[in-house]
Amino acid sequence: MVFDLDPRLAADTEDVCRLALCRVLLSRDANYPWLILVPERPGIREIRELEPADRASLMDEIVRATDVLERLYSPHKLNVAALGNSVAQLHVHAIARFTEDAAWPKPIWGAAPPTVYPPETLERRLAELRDAFAA
Amino acid sequence: MVFDLDPRLAADTEDVCRLALCRVLLSRDANYPWLILVPERPGIREIRELEPADRASLMDEIVRATDVLERLYSPHKLNVAALGNSVAQLHVHAIARFTEDAAWPKPIWGAAPPTVYPPETLERRLAELRDAFAA
Repeated sequence: MVFDLDPRLAADTEDVCRLALCRVLLSRDANYPWLILVPERPGIREIRELEPADRASLMDEIVRATDVLERLYSPHKLNVAALGNSVAQLHVHAIARFTEDAAWPKPIWGAAPPTVYPPETLERRLAELRDAFAA
Repeated sequence: MVFDLDPRLAADTEDVCRLALCRVLLSRDANYPWLILVPERPGIREIRELEPADRASLMDEIVRATDVLERLYSPHKLNVAALGNSVAQLHVHAIARFTEDAAWPKPIWGAAPPTVYPPETLERRLAELRDAFAA
């Protein structure tokens, strides 16, 4: 069985980088600095289905992603979630939240219409994220 | 610094049991089998603030909680989330979701008015959860 990124995840995101376990994606919704970690393991829907070593990697990579969000954006709060009701392929959201963001204090899903990054802002954000993950 | 459960978490939940790291709570909202894991560490708001050994315990206990939900309720999907926008004390939701539940396919927060367990149903649910965590 080969890992293929779910096309709905691919459609809503930009590639940031690859870590040991996960592909790191940036949501195209400019309302929030919003990363999505996708373990590159085929057929996995739940964290509990990962092998123990992969669970440890996922925890490490959640911490790494939230460290990056903290360092770059100094958010008020970090949100970490594996939901998957619409897209079942296991993916973990890591979102930098601010008291002045479009959804605060609600969870972001469905709370505010997505906004689009101006192209230069998107390129800058992807570059700063790639640099931060490489550091 | 001593660990104290946030009073808003205490007000909305029943005690299930204690694991090595976390206190396990059951939400009083009867719409979903909804567990909340609270690491008994004072002053922690984010997963990334936990010591590495505690992060490993948290991952183990998330898997244990979702294993329990899977075994008891055979949900369509599990939702796992650390949000904390309203209650900052680190707590991880583990929720059994069903395609016929009150919020499906949306995330549960704010999606449907909470419902109350009949007292006997609540006692039965707490008992089956305690048995499952003890197994």
